[in-house]
Order: sequence, then C-alpha cells, then structure tokens
Amino acid sequence: MRSRPPGRPAAPAGGIWLYGLHAVAAALRNPQRRLRRLLLSEEAEVAIAVRLGIDRGSAWPVPVERTERARLDALVGRDAVHQGAGLLADPLATPSLEQALSKPGPVLVLDQVSDPRNVGAILRSAAAFGGSAVIVQDRHAPEETGALAKAASGALETMPLLRAVNLSRTLVALKAAGLWIVGLDAGGAALVGASFTGRRVALVLGAEGEGLRRLTRETCDEVAGLFMPGTMESLNVSNAAAVALYELSRRPVQIT
Amino acid sequence: MRSRPPGRPAAPAGGIWLYGLHAVAAALRNPQRRLRRLLLSEEAEVAIAVRLGIDRGSAWPVPVERTERARLDALVGRDAVHQGAGLLADPLATPSLEQALSKPGPVLVLDQVSDPRNVGAILRSAAAFGGSAVIVQDRHAPEETGALAKAASGALETMPLLRAVNLSRTLVALKAAGLWIVGLDAGGAALVGASFTGRRVALVLGAEGEGLRRLTRETCDEVAGLFMPGTMESLNVSNAAAVALYELSRRPVQIT
Repeated sequence: MRSRPPGRPAAPAGGIWLYGLHAVAAALRNPQRRLRRLLLSEEAEVAIAVRLGIDRGSAWPVPVERTERARLDALVGRDAVHQGAGLLADPLATPSLEQALSKPGPVLVLDQVSDPRNVGAILRSAAAFGGSAVIVQDRHAPEETGALAKAASGALETMPLLRAVNLSRTLVALKAAGLWIVGLDAGGAALVGASFTGRRVALVLGAEGEGLRRLTRETCDEVAGLFMPGTMESLNVSNAAAVALYELSRRPVQIT
Repeated sequence: MRSRPPGRPAAPAGGIWLYGLHAVAAALRNPQRRLRRLLLSEEAEVAIAVRLGIDRGSAWPVPVERTERARLDALVGRDAVHQGAGLLADPLATPSLEQALSKPGPVLVLDQVSDPRNVGAILRSAAAFGGSAVIVQDRHAPEETGALAKAASGALETMPLLRAVNLSRTLVALKAAGLWIVGLDAGGAALVGASFTGRRVALVLGAEGEGLRRLTRETCDEVAGLFMPGTMESLNVSNAAAVALYELSRRPVQIT
C-alpha cells in the first residue's frame, strides 16, 4: 500500500499532493494543515478565491504559483481530476481515540476497506450525517492520498481519520467508552436507527465482497443488515455506509 | 468520452473488456450477452466456476483461456482490479423506455454524471433497491466500460441502462407514462419516501458539484433533498442515489 502508483512522481519527503477545488479549498481553510506549495490554473484561482472569500493576489495563506494543467497532470497523475488545483501539504496529525470521541455522533470502523475513493466518500458521508470519526485498519487502509482527499471533498480536513493497528482491540476500547458496536453484514436483522435511541453507535463495515472477518464479527454487540428489497447481495461499501448513517440519523415517520 | 484511456490498448471493434469476478460471472450467466473470449487465471477460474455452479474444464459458455495476470494488466489497464478475470464481449442491446418501464420500481435519471464508477455503483444500488431502469444523458455519460461494469458488480447484466439524447424530453415521456418526477437537490423539502405511496417515482440526480441544470429542475414535478444533519453540503452522487433509493423503499417506522 505504501508504494506510489506507477508512472506518478513522488511528493517530496513527508508531503502529499492534494488536488481538486473542494479538497484544496478545504485544506487552505484548515488552520491545522501545514501548507507547502499551492499550484493553481487561472480558473482554479478564481474559483478557490470565491470559496475562501478573498481577493485575487492578496491574503492567500500560501503564495499562489500559476500553473498549466499539463504540469498538474504530471504531478498528481493524468487520471486525477485535479480541476487545475494542486496543493502540496503535510499530512494531518492523527487525533487519539479519546480526542475523537469527545465530539458526539456515530463512529465508523472500516475493516480492510482499501480503496481510497471509498474511504474518501465515507469520510464525506460521515461529515454529512454528523459522524464523529472514521477508523481504518492501518495495514489494509489506503494512505492519506490525494485520491482519498478528492473523494472526501473537503471532509478530510474536518472528520478525524484514525488508524488502528489491531481492530479488535479498538472495538473493545470503543465498548469500554460506552459505544454499542453494530457490524453491518447480511444475515442479521434489518438495521433500524430508531432502535438505538439513547445509545451511541460504532458501525463496522467489512471489505468489499469479503464482509466482516470472523473475529471482527464476534466482537460486535450485534450484526445488522440493510433493508434491500431488490436482487443484489450487497452495495458498494461507501454506498452501504451512507445508507447506514442515514438510517442511524433518521427520525420516525408519522403517516397521517 | 469516446477516446480510450491513455496507455490502454483498445478492445477489438465493437467489443468491450469486462473484468472482475462479479462482473465476469454475471456476464457469463446472462443469455443476452454475446461472449467472445474468456481469459482467466487459475484462481479466477475456480472462483467463477463456483459462482456458476459448473465443474472446471466442462460446460463453460465460452472456452477458457488460461492467462497470467500481467497479460490482463496489459489488456484492461494496470489500475483495474481485474482479479484475474477478463471477458471480451459485445455491448448489450439497449431496451426501449417502454420495455424498461414494463417492470415495476423507481427509475433513476442521471443528468451529466460522467464518472463510470459512480454510474456503475448506481446501477448496483438500483438493483439492490428494486429499481427498474437507469437513464443517462448520452452526451455526458460514460461508455459501457469495464470500469462501469466492475463497479456495477454484475448489475449491468440485469438493470437496464438507457441513453437519452434529450433528457428533458425523456422526463416528459416519463411523466406521460404516469411517473412522478422528483429532482434530488438541496433547497427543497426533505425527501420522504412514504409520501409517494401509490405513485411511481423517477428520481433525477445532477452532476457532482453542479447539481441539476435549470431546465432539468424546472421539468421536475418537485425538488427534494436528503435529510443530512451534518456539515457537508452534498454526498458523492452514488451515495446520494443509494440513500434516496433506500428512502423511497423504506417503510414507516412505528416506535412503541
């Protein structure tokens, strides 16, 4: 997981290239993010200045280097939709589990989800539905890459992303902190958010196709699946996370 | 959209390379899919034989060519997670709108959603939640590529994917067929599935970041957004589609 993609130049030691208008604007707004270089096309500079509410040519948190799109293609990869915006920055410091739990909201635990776009989309959904943290297994999780940040659409700056060396131990720590651990998998009853009223939930999702590993499953307080009336066994993992978070945040419906 | 990705060889005229265990197994099971060549690693042959319920070496719908993974890397692209399975096949014939509507279930209309992985994940969610068709705008939609089929995880074989030249005209045709057109966008009331009881819904989703275009929005019977208590403006479009489909299929909750 730690090797760089083929044909793509490495970022300078310790730095990462963030790209895309949302991801770059959010990083520029984040006082915790150490910025190194900001490369923008003319159109991207206008778009990001609007987002940040600043005038062109003044008050940027790091000097703007006007850049052709081809240069960004070479830096972040041709397949990356950089939208003319690239930011070289340091990775964020990872908060402790205790710090992350000081905010309210459900916690998402990803058991061997390795696709950076899925992890990014899950960060975005966690932010949208009032989650407090996303925890990934260190060995099988993607690096905090540009692709992850792009898919997170700014949520990487606000939603804590923690890496657990031993996921079962982390689940035990979450239980000790008072959370109710729900594994999302087929074979259980349907997930009903209203049944968790008054309890804080940690939702555990397994890898695509593999589902939850046995040990992870056994550590959960309960296993529940999504109500799906159709013909597929499962959803894309980020889609499943979004639906489960929605279900956890939904209110009872009154039909009159 | 019609040019092939850089560094990737083209499929023979008219053919497409499908890859990934789920996508290939589903295509082999689909009697409507015209098969040309099947390239499998030893592990993939075992895995797909199990899925199809056939013995190795017998009864394959097209001869198996034992293939090294490096050969598949060259055929479908190094970044593609092919899992040792590649199938050269013809694209599926596109059904008419009338044929697609003969099955029950909500219809999804994608206004300029161009990422093949998002369209594929939406096909998968449509199949999971009992949708009847996914309609994309022809000019801005991805080709029926391997990436789309992989993300659809088999749903491309069962969920009709239609291409509309003029999306507003298609919405008018859906209205004429008795569907209620709901645009998914911020600024409306929260989407509540139970309020559509007895009505068949076509759900319209716009491009990432752009939202619905003015003409599309004006053609909708109503505009509704997803209930999101958090800090993000929007979800990934496939995540939004999954949550909206879930909301449309959910039943009223009774709290006692």
